[in-house]
Amino acid sequence: SFREEIAKFLTDYTGAAKELNPEHITVMNGCCAVFATLSTVLCDPGDGYLIPAPYYGGINSKTWLYGGIQPVHVPLFSEVTDEESHPFQLTVAKLEAALQRAKKQGIHVRALILINPHNPLGDIYPEQLLKECLEFAHRYGLHVIMDEIYMLSVYGDTTFTSILSLDCLPDPERTHSMWGFSKDFGMSGIRVGVLHTKNPEIQKAVNELVVFHSCPGPVQHILCQLLRDRDWLENVFFPTNKKRLREAQNILVAGLADLGIPVFKSSAGLYVWADFRKFLKSQTFEAEFELWQKILDKKLLISPGKAFYCYEPGWFRLVFSDSLDKIYLGTQRLEQTLQSDTVEPATTNTSSAADALCNPEKDSPAKTSHTSGEDPSQLENILVY
Amino acid sequence: SFREEIAKFLTDYTGAAKELNPEHITVMNGCCAVFATLSTVLCDPGDGYLIPAPYYGGINSKTWLYGGIQPVHVPLFSEVTDEESHPFQLTVAKLEAALQRAKKQGIHVRALILINPHNPLGDIYPEQLLKECLEFAHRYGLHVIMDEIYMLSVYGDTTFTSILSLDCLPDPERTHSMWGFSKDFGMSGIRVGVLHTKNPEIQKAVNELVVFHSCPGPVQHILCQLLRDRDWLENVFFPTNKKRLREAQNILVAGLADLGIPVFKSSAGLYVWADFRKFLKSQTFEAEFELWQKILDKKLLISPGKAFYCYEPGWFRLVFSDSLDKIYLGTQRLEQTLQSDTVEPATTNTSSAADALCNPEKDSPAKTSHTSGEDPSQLENILVY
Repeated sequence: SFREEIAKFLTDYTGAAKELNPEHITVMNGCCAVFATLSTVLCDPGDGYLIPAPYYGGINSKTWLYGGIQPVHVPLFSEVTDEESHPFQLTVAKLEAALQRAKKQGIHVRALILINPHNPLGDIYPEQLLKECLEFAHRYGLHVIMDEIYMLSVYGDTTFTSILSLDCLPDPERTHSMWGFSKDFGMSGIRVGVLHTKNPEIQKAVNELVVFHSCPGPVQHILCQLLRDRDWLENVFFPTNKKRLREAQNILVAGLADLGIPVFKSSAGLYVWADFRKFLKSQTFEAEFELWQKILDKKLLISPGKAFYCYEPGWFRLVFSDSLDKIYLGTQRLEQTLQSDTVEPATTNTSSAADALCNPEKDSPAKTSHTSGEDPSQLENILVY
Repeated sequence: SFREEIAKFLTDYTGAAKELNPEHITVMNGCCAVFATLSTVLCDPGDGYLIPAPYYGGINSKTWLYGGIQPVHVPLFSEVTDEESHPFQLTVAKLEAALQRAKKQGIHVRALILINPHNPLGDIYPEQLLKECLEFAHRYGLHVIMDEIYMLSVYGDTTFTSILSLDCLPDPERTHSMWGFSKDFGMSGIRVGVLHTKNPEIQKAVNELVVFHSCPGPVQHILCQLLRDRDWLENVFFPTNKKRLREAQNILVAGLADLGIPVFKSSAGLYVWADFRKFLKSQTFEAEFELWQKILDKKLLISPGKAFYCYEPGWFRLVFSDSLDKIYLGTQRLEQTLQSDTVEPATTNTSSAADALCNPEKDSPAKTSHTSGEDPSQLENILVY
């Protein structure tokens, strides 16, 4: 069956400690549905979930529309403190702080959502941090939802640790993970997402909802055959895919470097996270939007940090999973846009990020709940995948 | 596009007054999803919808699980009164009565759900009755949800009137209909349902949810090609399908007649609605369940009336869309079961149906809301399609 093939595949490709049990797998029409069902089943409307920001902003609507739950941001910043080794670094102390802030605001936090490999940062959580996060969640009885949708799109040398590979989870009954075909197989239109959970009660409840999120039989049949062709996957598809991703990423990063745009060091995903702060007229999200619009006018679509609930204006996500000529063309257009800028670049500072943290009225998690989990700004129509 | 092909197809096959606008069509992964999104969008949790009973029982969970809304039954009975021409006849007076009862119980009724061709009755609403129902709904500001999933599985001579064929709807902004590929093309695993609504606000809201119910691109592509092959559909597929359905239905009805089992006169769908009352030990749903179990023990799976929220025990739905040898085998097994019955058949009466109506504690719509829209009896695990 499809679930058996998926279990075998994930066992091999996550380096699972033990062979995965097909019974722990639920197939749905995409990870949107996994988020919708999990948020409906794990939480009550109004509950919150911790999520490090920036993050893939689509999670807001996917957990809100049916589940009615709200994000509690764990804001990460580019500035590196003495205890940290890189920008936007997640630490358990930051999770703790966000949880305590949410409690004070009266939000009942039920879960922690982690995206690994990360979207939009493109980095990978070290195994040690992953374990610390799991222990943190266990300490507070939080469910952990691991979004591993970019699991096999690792082009760098960093080792990815899937939650499925961990020998001993602190709280296996509250640890759930998802993966899908969209990204790693370049098949976003195929609509197949997979939930893995060892919790039979949760799975039973999710199964009640799965009738609304079912995956056509013929699609299951074809993907079974794809997964069975292990020789082609192992020797042709994945090596080629990784090679192309690495090449494309290198070219984009080099092109951005030529324009003086620093890029966050990443090793997975189909995008880079780039620092355009020096091109903002002012260090505000309005200026970020203005720059985004100007770049779009030159027919280059990139995603502003605001769409990822980033707390610092000026960061953009650029997708590179395309042919190399498109990437060259993209950097060319970017160059034209930035050079046509007559305004002097402002000095980079993080004051607005500090504002965002200090002024809960302005951009707090609590605010989100009044706006259907969607950002109320003019950016609301920017679709990001 | 897929929506354009569907619009053309439905224009032709419903005899639509005007060419259907593809913009009014929303594609989802099955009609389950159409029910889930419409109930979420049109109603608030706790609201009710009128629905003539018996009806396809799956509607309860499909409108409850995400939408949180409850059925308000319009009970129909086999006894034919002086004003009526056939058993289980729907009249506007019955809709009125059910609506008033619900109001007294404090249920906010927001919609009327009609299944046409009907499941499980297999009959077709006459155009005049359809119009009266639409006017009734308009009078009370109710949305109308027309489930036309068996639209093209008409094997009898009765003319089917699609809501889409009506020239002038009393309340077009509150009239919504659905159709899918599952039944009429014998493709239940393909998971494609279609919502038609002219209400842009409703459609916009539904579209927000459609990300959870999307239909894979390759499936859309293949079905486009199927719909375009009008010559084959018109001259081969539909005539053959109708001929086979008619043949199979005739054989099943004849086989049941030999066993002394009357069948409700139907002309559409993949099933007949048959009167097993004389084989019940007593006129109760317990006896109905017992008979169902006994038939199942002989390896024949039919669906008891209770699964359709029928108010009279003793009615069963029998699916005939199978090869003729299976139908012969089925009637044979049925004969063996019924002949092995040592208990004397009880006299048919409708007292228990009257009980069900008079005793709201026992089987009222209000009760349903406490049980997640599912029947609390031992029948809850009987799946019916």
